[in-house]
Amino acid sequence: MTKIAIDAMGGDFGPNPIAEGVISALKERKFHAFLVGKTDILKPLIPNELEKFVTFVQADEVFEMKNDATNVLKKKETSIYKAIELVKNGECKAVVSAGHSGATMSLATLKIGRLKNVSRPAIATLMPTSKETKTLVLDVGANVDSKSEHIFQSGVMGEAYAKEIMKIKNPKISILSNGEEECKGDSATKGAHQMLKILDTFVGNAEGNQIFDGSVDVVTCDGFIGNIVLKTSEGVADAMNKLIKKEVKGSLIAIAGAILMKNVFKRVKKATDYDEYGGAPLLGVKNCVIISHGKSSPKAIKNAIFQALEFANSNINSVIEKRLEELSLTKSKEAI
Amino acid sequence: MTKIAIDAMGGDFGPNPIAEGVISALKERKFHAFLVGKTDILKPLIPNELEKFVTFVQADEVFEMKNDATNVLKKKETSIYKAIELVKNGECKAVVSAGHSGATMSLATLKIGRLKNVSRPAIATLMPTSKETKTLVLDVGANVDSKSEHIFQSGVMGEAYAKEIMKIKNPKISILSNGEEECKGDSATKGAHQMLKILDTFVGNAEGNQIFDGSVDVVTCDGFIGNIVLKTSEGVADAMNKLIKKEVKGSLIAIAGAILMKNVFKRVKKATDYDEYGGAPLLGVKNCVIISHGKSSPKAIKNAIFQALEFANSNINSVIEKRLEELSLTKSKEAI
Repeated sequence: MTKIAIDAMGGDFGPNPIAEGVISALKERKFHAFLVGKTDILKPLIPNELEKFVTFVQADEVFEMKNDATNVLKKKETSIYKAIELVKNGECKAVVSAGHSGATMSLATLKIGRLKNVSRPAIATLMPTSKETKTLVLDVGANVDSKSEHIFQSGVMGEAYAKEIMKIKNPKISILSNGEEECKGDSATKGAHQMLKILDTFVGNAEGNQIFDGSVDVVTCDGFIGNIVLKTSEGVADAMNKLIKKEVKGSLIAIAGAILMKNVFKRVKKATDYDEYGGAPLLGVKNCVIISHGKSSPKAIKNAIFQALEFANSNINSVIEKRLEELSLTKSKEAI
Repeated sequence: MTKIAIDAMGGDFGPNPIAEGVISALKERKFHAFLVGKTDILKPLIPNELEKFVTFVQADEVFEMKNDATNVLKKKETSIYKAIELVKNGECKAVVSAGHSGATMSLATLKIGRLKNVSRPAIATLMPTSKETKTLVLDVGANVDSKSEHIFQSGVMGEAYAKEIMKIKNPKISILSNGEEECKGDSATKGAHQMLKILDTFVGNAEGNQIFDGSVDVVTCDGFIGNIVLKTSEGVADAMNKLIKKEVKGSLIAIAGAILMKNVFKRVKKATDYDEYGGAPLLGVKNCVIISHGKSSPKAIKNAIFQALEFANSNINSVIEKRLEELSLTKSKEAI
């Protein structure tokens, strides 16, 4: 049974939604949960009949959101530190954290360690499209000031994710830019574009709107930019919902219309809902690290655990290592 | 009467929507239009009673979208070249172009020239929010690989636009970043953040979602990033509309609901419609240059002309020059 370590304390709303998410995940799939945190708080949250699938790991402290991530290595009694240690020690195959994402990344990179040939891990996130598909965008926040090599490596890691996890045979890999022509981009992007040509899956530049139209499967970019894209898309969706609600309020006819359209809005919400994905994998580190939103609902935690299960039981990490090895050999051959 | 030069040929759909836009603008406000392009095509498009408000300026060629902007200085017979020349020579106070935006920018910067103390002009665009307000975002595409100084200057130009054109007494100026804390950002952003502190209107970092929630009035950023934000927001709005339409199609009840909500959707569309703004001013060049979308509708052209009129009759350029002068004096004093 796959063993998953879960930081049960780090989220914005404390242990309750996390425990609830673990319970619903356990009801749907077989795995073993290592719940890390204050045992006296966590134990009463898990029903007796599920206790055989849960191991409680005591951690006295929580690494709070307001703390600076650089201090995390010294905070050995925090739930995130102990959860990462379970993976480092080989006890668990994956970790799910809704806590301080910077701290999770630092610990994952420094304690669990990077994959061979990866210089910087990247956070990958799925974005909804107007088609039935999803687009994988990475990096959405692990690194700023990326060099071409980092954006290139994210593209390669995204290709592996698309093939191994999203099960797309011939994924379309693209790079985010300010125009479709090859000459468009800032210098890091233009350099990465040239390097990505080595992939037969590379389809060139993608503009911001292409993330949401289903025309590409993977979009690689620097983490500063990816994070802004992520927040921008949340902001637009939120503003549109608010505008519609405000306009509906003013008219009885519109209220009637909105009632009739209730199911439509529900399905659109579901299609664009972060909770449906649950978490963002940190690609490029050993084992499996899933970073969830601090405000994760139980459903988001459940889906993050499912993501961890799928990831932990896939070959993605060895595919990434081999692919980067192979590409660097090709590059050196071409240089001769 | 304010004289506005209009590149009547450069848009994706040829001269017709542009002429139509000019006609509806002339019906609403008093100005004189210099229509630049093939006179034999343009003349028949303008009704006799409006001809006294129009001067036709012959240009034999069009600078096409597929051309490389770097060649534009040699293409002296193109409509955009001749339109820019009308401003350079003092004949017109503003130019509106729905043509090749790179070419328009190059010509504006090289022929009309930059304002004193501005090192790089920036394209500014208004974005809708869930409130009644708009947010000015700049740069959305003039410059890539911006240094801190450029992002700072865009912030100062945005402040002037907010005060002089948007008529906001105490605008909130912010810088786009991947977190609200001062320590967040790539190196150019972090440097610009420090420089922007000199403005008493500066409120710190804004995240992507804050563009759309009305919490800030101006967001400054590098043009590569701003362009991606612009396209991302268009993409999200478009995807949401498509998802709603697709879901509605599947159910008669939902169709009935959508009919009742028709006015709501119309008003939301109007609130978020690019055509309502019409164009993006190029801030930091002398006189007034308004860049419109290649696919501009007549309404967008009309609104771009109104924007040009407002801009040309404001003090914004002298405010920008004075403010940058004043700030550089303060900075040098502080350095002593």
